[in-house]
Amino acid sequence: MPDKLLRMKRATPEGTIRPVVLGIAGDSAAGKTSLTRGIVEALGPDRSVSICVDDYHRYDRQERRGLPFTPLHPDCNYVDIMEQHLGLLATGQPILKPVYDHSTGCLTRPELVEPREYVIVEGLLPLMTKLSRASLDITVYLDPPEEVRTGWKIKRDVGERGYTREQVLAEMERREPESEAFIRPQRTHADLVVRFAPIAGRDDPPGTPLSAELLLRPTIEHPNLSSVIGEDVNRAVHLKLIRDNDGRPVDALHVHGYAAPEDSRLVEKTIWDELGGPEPVPSGLGRLAGGQHSDPLAITQLIILYHLLRLS
Amino acid sequence: MPDKLLRMKRATPEGTIRPVVLGIAGDSAAGKTSLTRGIVEALGPDRSVSICVDDYHRYDRQERRGLPFTPLHPDCNYVDIMEQHLGLLATGQPILKPVYDHSTGCLTRPELVEPREYVIVEGLLPLMTKLSRASLDITVYLDPPEEVRTGWKIKRDVGERGYTREQVLAEMERREPESEAFIRPQRTHADLVVRFAPIAGRDDPPGTPLSAELLLRPTIEHPNLSSVIGEDVNRAVHLKLIRDNDGRPVDALHVHGYAAPEDSRLVEKTIWDELGGPEPVPSGLGRLAGGQHSDPLAITQLIILYHLLRLS
Repeated sequence: MPDKLLRMKRATPEGTIRPVVLGIAGDSAAGKTSLTRGIVEALGPDRSVSICVDDYHRYDRQERRGLPFTPLHPDCNYVDIMEQHLGLLATGQPILKPVYDHSTGCLTRPELVEPREYVIVEGLLPLMTKLSRASLDITVYLDPPEEVRTGWKIKRDVGERGYTREQVLAEMERREPESEAFIRPQRTHADLVVRFAPIAGRDDPPGTPLSAELLLRPTIEHPNLSSVIGEDVNRAVHLKLIRDNDGRPVDALHVHGYAAPEDSRLVEKTIWDELGGPEPVPSGLGRLAGGQHSDPLAITQLIILYHLLRLS
Repeated sequence: MPDKLLRMKRATPEGTIRPVVLGIAGDSAAGKTSLTRGIVEALGPDRSVSICVDDYHRYDRQERRGLPFTPLHPDCNYVDIMEQHLGLLATGQPILKPVYDHSTGCLTRPELVEPREYVIVEGLLPLMTKLSRASLDITVYLDPPEEVRTGWKIKRDVGERGYTREQVLAEMERREPESEAFIRPQRTHADLVVRFAPIAGRDDPPGTPLSAELLLRPTIEHPNLSSVIGEDVNRAVHLKLIRDNDGRPVDALHVHGYAAPEDSRLVEKTIWDELGGPEPVPSGLGRLAGGQHSDPLAITQLIILYHLLRLS
């Protein structure tokens, strides 16, 4: 655990911890759980806690059968209670969080969540309202291309949730209008937009890890990456000033999936050392659901850790 | 619905309702549900909502088997979450309230509770902490003699919850140290202490309703009962200045179970008219679990309604 991780209490005068709160939004199977898992593991589960705001579903699976919307719709969620609970956690107070069981589709017994120094809030709609964003110190939107997300969703829902490929595709089609209306508009509210995708125009061999593009919006103070990303690592990552879809200027950090592992590891170690070393880079960073390793994911997690530690 | 009931919004500048919050504490089977039911019915379910804070149990029945305390113990309840939720309701905000199912002993799906103009909070421990009391505008403690409460508990738990008489008595004995430590100390924090009991020294025939003694503590401003309780009704009720157990001065309102029904009804009508009539006294006042009627209960409910309306 780096030194910085040991000096990161933001205690109020009364001794209540004011956590640093990270929000991660994205559509179903956009990679929220994988991103969150490595961050929590690196921070240490005693100093961090993650919640999934999809637990704030207003209706269970059975009830939704008679309703004209999918779980993506704000009317299908207790958005006001989600806002309230994020505000409570952000001010250092415990919550009794509802629990939605994905395996049965039932709403079950709620669970106590006590804030730790870092609170990670992931789910479909954490960036949707101004009030929910007010409780988040850093906001991330996961923005994979739809064909990548479709592949991930089929893999997970067929492999782990018992659906057929056709059911998954039909459900995605049914959800698309609500993805457009409620999920994707959250992208504009993110300090970091993360896109895992193959790089267009390259002819990489099968099995090459996806690259990552991180948009670092000027909405928060980003670390001076030039000190981290020197000439010696630019085969693995490079930073480029671009205009976002909407014309706003933004730094785009490209993390190359095709880079040699030793180049990527050097980037990871350089960022990690900046965070206060001297321990080795946590092995959980970059771990994918199936157990494989992705250096672009690890570097993304390190950049987010950089922000979390800066704020603590 | 009396006029006063139609002029009772305490709206904040933004339009949020600041409810009047009534807290009713008492041991198991002390009569909390019967008292609450008539009050909610008189206020109208569209203007009032009641919650039972025994839903804040931390452990279900199965888990409690391995634990060294009963549901009366603060450690067996999410007291901090109860305090938080009372504060939210008192400031006009909704809560997602946990639900404990008494029939199965399980904690189940939570439910949304939105504040109305009147919020009634009843249960084992609503007056326990300073923070919970801070959210209550009026506090009531139900204080029947133990032999009366034992009779009520046997009747309910054998009749409705499937226990034997011996099981109920054994459970009461097991709970007694925690009743003493946590339930009965709440009596001192109540603005009104209500004791349903037979009157000592009288030889009333069987079936005579229990009388009620209401201690009206000088902790809140009580209505000027002399305008309500004149000479013409003193066969049914009378007011007496006494010292409480602890020596503090207190008004004791005695409501006689042996009074002629017409005398009791006159008291009820007099209080009700003071509240802004002209409708008849709500028929739900004084209704007991088995469907019988108790004039002392009705008069107790009317005194509490008097307070609620004064504050609204």
